Amino acid sequence: MAGGGSDGRSVAEKLFAIADAFQGREDLSLSEIAARANLPLSTAHRLVAEWVEWGGLVRGEDGRYRVGMRVWRLGVRQPTAMRLRRIAMPYLEDLLEATTEHVHLAVRDGLGAIYLERLSGADAVSVISDVGSRLPLHATGVGLVLLAHAPSEVFDEVLASQPRRYLPNTLTEERELRRRLAEIRSFGISTSLEELTRGAFSVAAPVRDATGEVVAAVSVIAHVERVGEPQFALGVRMAARGISSALGYRPAGE
Amino acid sequence: MAGGGSDGRSVAEKLFAIADAFQGREDLSLSEIAARANLPLSTAHRLVAEWVEWGGLVRGEDGRYRVGMRVWRLGVRQPTAMRLRRIAMPYLEDLLEATTEHVHLAVRDGLGAIYLERLSGADAVSVISDVGSRLPLHATGVGLVLLAHAPSEVFDEVLASQPRRYLPNTLTEERELRRRLAEIRSFGISTSLEELTRGAFSVAAPVRDATGEVVAAVSVIAHVERVGEPQFALGVRMAARGISSALGYRPAGE
Repeated sequence: MAGGGSDGRSVAEKLFAIADAFQGREDLSLSEIAARANLPLSTAHRLVAEWVEWGGLVRGEDGRYRVGMRVWRLGVRQPTAMRLRRIAMPYLEDLLEATTEHVHLAVRDGLGAIYLERLSGADAVSVISDVGSRLPLHATGVGLVLLAHAPSEVFDEVLASQPRRYLPNTLTEERELRRRLAEIRSFGISTSLEELTRGAFSVAAPVRDATGEVVAAVSVIAHVERVGEPQFALGVRMAARGISSALGYRPAGE
Repeated sequence: MAGGGSDGRSVAEKLFAIADAFQGREDLSLSEIAARANLPLSTAHRLVAEWVEWGGLVRGEDGRYRVGMRVWRLGVRQPTAMRLRRIAMPYLEDLLEATTEHVHLAVRDGLGAIYLERLSGADAVSVISDVGSRLPLHATGVGLVLLAHAPSEVFDEVLASQPRRYLPNTLTEERELRRRLAEIRSFGISTSLEELTRGAFSVAAPVRDATGEVVAAVSVIAHVERVGEPQFALGVRMAARGISSALGYRPAGE
């Protein structure tokens, strides 16, 4: 089957590999797409043309390809992402105003935390997360909160995946991870110091829906020099509580 | 070729027809997808499974399919949609506060206006637009503004498409459309009364980028009883001007 681009993948899988080539990239040339999707140039050329015909990719005047409005329109039909963002936005904005750093809203997707929203103050610390990013559960504030409230199989899978130690403070061993997750469940908040990003700390808290299930997490990432300021923990707690309440959550005894 | 679902469409076209089935719908059963994509049930079953395998569609506990997080994540890589929304948001929020009705941000996509954002007050008039909606240029406030500043071929295409008269006030004839578009260009604002939605009026204005090109439109849709209140035209103008300025537009002579 050499030379024809047949590699055991279905046409659909090849089409989706082209879409995946755009993760983390705003625009790509045809040869970059072919390389990232692991396709011969001729196959990439033919399938990219199908994407363009549909409107899922657009070819710019510079000859480079970008994600098209068609995919954006389809994506906004994702029920969780749109509803959570819409409900959470006023609380995230209040939290940004109170902290002037990065404010995140994330949901769990397998072993990753997907960032549904990021609001940032003008002088916020430099971070790698952005809207649509998917970062590992064990190394982010929102991820640890989501992991603390996930089924135990998810924790087993995280351990089995050999979690990476990004910085000296990143938790990777079972015992230290278990202790941290128990702390998060007890205190209702997670505080991380330089676990993924040097010079930054994060405070994160869980968001619950009407059934009491943790469906998202809110966090602030800020310059490490500000770690002692009281508005971070307070603000994150209030934002998480406000969003939960807007989702219909009523704490026991209230 | 009977029975096998071969109808001259490529696999890619069939996959994209499945995606298109979700326009305007939050969830669909397999048979609804097959019907809307015009595919035999067996073909739909096989291709939907490929979408699910990738994460572009998700099957809920109720057996119905929804757009998955994967598509949402890909969609947020659409450069125009994300950048424009992010830059425009504070101005749209101010406009919502000043008017307490619906606030829209839209861009032109062929002969349609795509709604990038909609913010709504609690008592806003009932409308059909939502984030991701695509409505005809000739029948919406934002659409008329975008059409007024589009290349003349677009106007010819709108006329050739036999624009639909949704309500008695909808403009559909060449002479009345030409006059309205000229007015919009002269006054820098468009005011429509019950052209798409009964009981509603709209005020819309163009957003320009650093090159002076009209790249988007802002509008308010409000209850017709409030048509005389001065904050609508003023607010829409200020929002459009603020967003244009944030995009780098500098009016001549300033």
